[in-house]
Amino acid sequence: MQPVKLPKGFRAAGVAAGIKKGGGLDLALLVSDRDCVAAAVFTQNKVKAAPVIYDQQLLAEGNALRAVVINSGCANACTGEQGLRDCAEMAELVAQQVGCPTRAVFVMSTGVIGVPLPMDKLRAGIPAAAQALSEDGLLAAAQAIMTTDTLPKLAAGDLTVMADEQRSGPRTAQLAGIAKGAGMIHPNMATMLAVVMTDAIVRPEVLKRALNSAVRKSFNRISVDGDTSTNDTLVVLANGASGLEPLETEFEILLTSVCTDLAKQIVKDGEGATKFITIEVTGARDERMAEQVGRTIARSPLVKTAFYGEDPNWGRIIAAAGYSGEDVLTERMALWIGDVQVCAGGAAVAYPEEAVIGAMRAKEIAIRLDLGLGNASATVWTCDLSHDYVTINGRYRT
Amino acid sequence: MQPVKLPKGFRAAGVAAGIKKGGGLDLALLVSDRDCVAAAVFTQNKVKAAPVIYDQQLLAEGNALRAVVINSGCANACTGEQGLRDCAEMAELVAQQVGCPTRAVFVMSTGVIGVPLPMDKLRAGIPAAAQALSEDGLLAAAQAIMTTDTLPKLAAGDLTVMADEQRSGPRTAQLAGIAKGAGMIHPNMATMLAVVMTDAIVRPEVLKRALNSAVRKSFNRISVDGDTSTNDTLVVLANGASGLEPLETEFEILLTSVCTDLAKQIVKDGEGATKFITIEVTGARDERMAEQVGRTIARSPLVKTAFYGEDPNWGRIIAAAGYSGEDVLTERMALWIGDVQVCAGGAAVAYPEEAVIGAMRAKEIAIRLDLGLGNASATVWTCDLSHDYVTINGRYRT
Repeated sequence: MQPVKLPKGFRAAGVAAGIKKGGGLDLALLVSDRDCVAAAVFTQNKVKAAPVIYDQQLLAEGNALRAVVINSGCANACTGEQGLRDCAEMAELVAQQVGCPTRAVFVMSTGVIGVPLPMDKLRAGIPAAAQALSEDGLLAAAQAIMTTDTLPKLAAGDLTVMADEQRSGPRTAQLAGIAKGAGMIHPNMATMLAVVMTDAIVRPEVLKRALNSAVRKSFNRISVDGDTSTNDTLVVLANGASGLEPLETEFEILLTSVCTDLAKQIVKDGEGATKFITIEVTGARDERMAEQVGRTIARSPLVKTAFYGEDPNWGRIIAAAGYSGEDVLTERMALWIGDVQVCAGGAAVAYPEEAVIGAMRAKEIAIRLDLGLGNASATVWTCDLSHDYVTINGRYRT
Repeated sequence: MQPVKLPKGFRAAGVAAGIKKGGGLDLALLVSDRDCVAAAVFTQNKVKAAPVIYDQQLLAEGNALRAVVINSGCANACTGEQGLRDCAEMAELVAQQVGCPTRAVFVMSTGVIGVPLPMDKLRAGIPAAAQALSEDGLLAAAQAIMTTDTLPKLAAGDLTVMADEQRSGPRTAQLAGIAKGAGMIHPNMATMLAVVMTDAIVRPEVLKRALNSAVRKSFNRISVDGDTSTNDTLVVLANGASGLEPLETEFEILLTSVCTDLAKQIVKDGEGATKFITIEVTGARDERMAEQVGRTIARSPLVKTAFYGEDPNWGRIIAAAGYSGEDVLTERMALWIGDVQVCAGGAAVAYPEEAVIGAMRAKEIAIRLDLGLGNASATVWTCDLSHDYVTINGRYRT
């Protein structure tokens, strides 16, 4: 893993506060030295964890943000009024340490549902995290938000801004992000927490538009198991410390790239995943149709177990397209596994079995389904469904 | 297994035609000695196997039926025009043997997708099946339609008809059915083939109404893995051989009971299933809402693996209700595992952990989720998601 640098003006820390049963880093803190413009997207689940409800209110008030605090080991979901009070106390503990308003602190949690936060551990852990803040703390923060993830997830990018009104000519703004994923990963959104930080100057409405566009093409195009969590949250913070304001389109492209990088890392590290599968749907009437077909394939347990078993059972892919709810036509469909066409006009074509089996044996598999109905396309990423997925999820809580 | 008798005027057979790679019974034939009124429901998948397209046309023409022929080992799906020609030839082979019109023969297939039917084997197998027809042949027919099923599925019931215009006083009409399930089981409908036969006199419009009502409360309330197949078909045949015409309501109740019996057998024998799970959703605004919440829970891989692991991770159940698409309210929800309440007002309640773990260890587990929004309810049945599900589906085709 190449080290990922924080953008200017940000510091981060990850500490062990004793929230996770097994020990290990479980409390992350991310702080900006000045006010940030912020935008966020949240789970579509009607059962929202306390921090989701808390943060939605926070952003609705239009608060500038200074800090994000995240614990793993406990989701603070299905915890009633107490859950909301605990969010407020977490924010207050951070505010005291950072010297900022309580309403400038964004709160996230991930872990088991239905258990209250162990506030005594957070009362000790948050000051410790504040002590540990540093410009090199991003990796520790990424590690502290992991649950069943096996690897920390970080991504970064930069953007050269041609600023002819600025004396020094072209300069660079940075983006960096961390994420956690693993289980309950499905569009709208994954169980997934992610924080992306930039030192670019980004106006609030630009940040919001760029985030929505980036999420649609990244986190909302991955699926591990089709479950949608109570806690999904992605927040982007822009503190302007670089002094540079990129063009909206350029910023959006960079944000999409960093989000896609994080999203793919989540799929590759999906619970029990042994294969990374890229599903390209082409020939759709519109992009939404291509997405919907791709997601349905990505979600099918029969497709996912076939990939795990390295079994080129392509009929399951066609069948999943058939129940996507979209108006597909069997006789128009064509399918490729790797470079080998296995289906044309909705029926089998003769193909070299060894070539397809070879493609199925790879760690990364690409398939392409052409619907034969139009010119739109979308790409969705998923992983296989393995014995280890069952093992991990049969024993997560106990 | 108690022997299940065929209704009057029906004969059945199951033979080994060599279609399945591993050998075993793979061709079933069901024949009535007189014309039958028929009604059927089919998969909602847009990718329909050739026999589904063939049978839909057959019934649209209003043909009386005399026979049903079913092969396992090959789904005849994604087989293009050749698939439809093969259906017609199967029907013609049966018609020659039975001495009935070709358009009186209903055709069903189940097995791997994308491979043409081995017609040479059916040309030899169908005459052999016709030779083997007998009044005791239902078990063999049920065995011949199995794919990854581990047990044949049969159910029967009878109905005493008070026929005051008939000399002999009350007499009995019979119903008997067979089904196959196992994988790709999800509402609308399961991958599932089923044939139900009765010697009652049932008018076409009554049969259609009764079937739709029965399916909604039986086959459409089970889920194994959320995949919807290309071949799902349930057909009901009424040949009137008993000379008795039951009341519509009584017939509907009996048909629902036989269909529910078959549907539950499918779930109990779901691929890799180790647990049979009954999900009762109460307190819904209407029955459709209760059904939708129940189905979403039944489909969640995280819920299903938790049951497999005997882990009372109830937050996953609440979370699944939350992403059902229905307007649920977290703070109204209450949940029971077995007899023990684990959640009230959307948050944890103190409960005896041992009692819940005891309930989770049973082979049959009942949960009840009260949505606290109204008076409607629905029950959905599912099974757990086990290591064996992954093994079976990673290796099905190869």
